[in-house]
Amino acid sequence: MPGARVVLVGVQESGNIGMVARAMKNFGLRELVLTAPQAAIGPESFKFAVGARDVLEGARTVATLDEALAGVHWVAAATARPREEYPGEPTTPREVAPFLRAALEAGQGVALVFGRERSGLTNAELDRAHFVVRIPTDPGFKSLNLAQAVLVLAYELFLARPGTTEAPTPAPAEQVEGFFRDLEGFLLEIGYTDERRLPHVMRAFRRIFHRAAPTAGELSMLRGLIRQSRWAIRREAERWR
Amino acid sequence: MPGARVVLVGVQESGNIGMVARAMKNFGLRELVLTAPQAAIGPESFKFAVGARDVLEGARTVATLDEALAGVHWVAAATARPREEYPGEPTTPREVAPFLRAALEAGQGVALVFGRERSGLTNAELDRAHFVVRIPTDPGFKSLNLAQAVLVLAYELFLARPGTTEAPTPAPAEQVEGFFRDLEGFLLEIGYTDERRLPHVMRAFRRIFHRAAPTAGELSMLRGLIRQSRWAIRREAERWR
Repeated sequence: MPGARVVLVGVQESGNIGMVARAMKNFGLRELVLTAPQAAIGPESFKFAVGARDVLEGARTVATLDEALAGVHWVAAATARPREEYPGEPTTPREVAPFLRAALEAGQGVALVFGRERSGLTNAELDRAHFVVRIPTDPGFKSLNLAQAVLVLAYELFLARPGTTEAPTPAPAEQVEGFFRDLEGFLLEIGYTDERRLPHVMRAFRRIFHRAAPTAGELSMLRGLIRQSRWAIRREAERWR
Repeated sequence: MPGARVVLVGVQESGNIGMVARAMKNFGLRELVLTAPQAAIGPESFKFAVGARDVLEGARTVATLDEALAGVHWVAAATARPREEYPGEPTTPREVAPFLRAALEAGQGVALVFGRERSGLTNAELDRAHFVVRIPTDPGFKSLNLAQAVLVLAYELFLARPGTTEAPTPAPAEQVEGFFRDLEGFLLEIGYTDERRLPHVMRAFRRIFHRAAPTAGELSMLRGLIRQSRWAIRREAERWR
C-alpha cells in the first residue's frame, strides 16, 4: 500500500522493531519510520523480522514527529487506554480503516502512529492525530504488545474496502502544524488564554480543526485570518500611540 | 467466551505458547489445549505471556487431537498455504467468525486449531475441521507467526456479532470421528476403495459430512445405516454358505 507509513515513537525494544516489520509486511505495508527511538535496529530486530529484512533496511530514523509526518495527510494514532482528555473520541481500527484506505487510493499520505511500549504516546503526540484509535479488547485484560497493535491495524487496513467518501485532500501535516503554531501565539497575544491553560485550550482547537481536516487552500484562509487579525490589532495599537 | 478453546498441535517453541496465551486473553479466550506438544510450558512461556499467566496455568496437555476436541461441536483449523486437496474451500476469519460466535451463544463448543510453527497441520488433522481458515495476507509475503495467527482469529471472534443462523447443534467431534471410523472400515469391506486410495476417498466423505454437520440424532441414523448394511451383507453371506 504505497502512501501508508508506520511511525513508531520512542520504541524501546530492538526486537519489537523486527516484529513490527514482520507484521507490516504481511499486510502490504513497507514504510517504517522510527521517531526518536530508544532502541536501535540490530541483530534482535532482524531475528524477529524473519523475511521482512527489507522493511528494516528501508526504515528511516528521524528526531521528531514533525519529520516523521512530513507529507502525510491523515494521521491515525493508537492508544491503549481511554484518555479523559478525549471524551468519547477513540474510534476502532475497523471503523477508521475504510476511510484511510479511500484516502490512500486517492493518493493521500497516511501515517499509523504507535507510542512507546511502556507509556504509549504523550497527549501532545496524540494531538497530532485526526483519529485516535483504540483496539477493542477484553475489558479485563488489555495487554496487546506493540507488534500486536500494529498487526491489527495493518490487518484492518489491508482488508478494508475503500469507503465511498470522496474526502478533499487535506493539507499536509507540517502545514497544519504551522497553522497551530500561529494560532497558539495568537491566542496568547490576544489574551484568549494564559500559558498555563494553553495546552488544554489548544487541545480543544486541534480537535475541531483535525475534524475539519482543512485543505491547503482552506489552511491559507485560516492563516490569513490570523495574519489579518494581527494587522488590525497593530493598526489600532498604532492609532492610539 | 466460554466454550471456545484454542488447540495448538505439536507446538515447537516454548515462548510461542506464552505469546499465544497473551493474544488469547486480550480477546476473552481462556481455554488452551496443547496436543502432542514438542515444547513445554516453561520460563520462556511465562515471560511472553506477561499478564496471561492464568491461561498458561490452566492449559491442558493431551496426546491426541481426539482428546483435544472432545466435547467440541465446531472445529475451525488455520492453514497458511493453499492446499490443493481443499479446492476453493478455505474461508477467512471474518467470514467464519459470526457463525462460530452464534454457535458459542447457543452453548455449542468451538475449537480453533493451529498447527506446528514450521509445518502447520497435516492433512489428516485438517480433515477434522468444519472450516479450514486462511488469513488473507499480502500474496508476496505470507509469514504470520503462530501467535499472530491466533491473534487475528481471536480478534475476529471477539468482534463478531453472532450470525442469525439458528444452526442445529451438531454432534460432538468424538461421535463424528466414531462414524468416520465406521465408514472407513465399511468402505474397505465393501470394496468401495482400497487401502491406497482410502485417505483420498475419506477426505471427500469428510468434506461432505462436515458440511452437513449432522446432529447426534442424525449421526445415529448414519451409523445405523452402516450397521444395517453390514447386517444385510452378513445375511447374504450366510444364505450362500
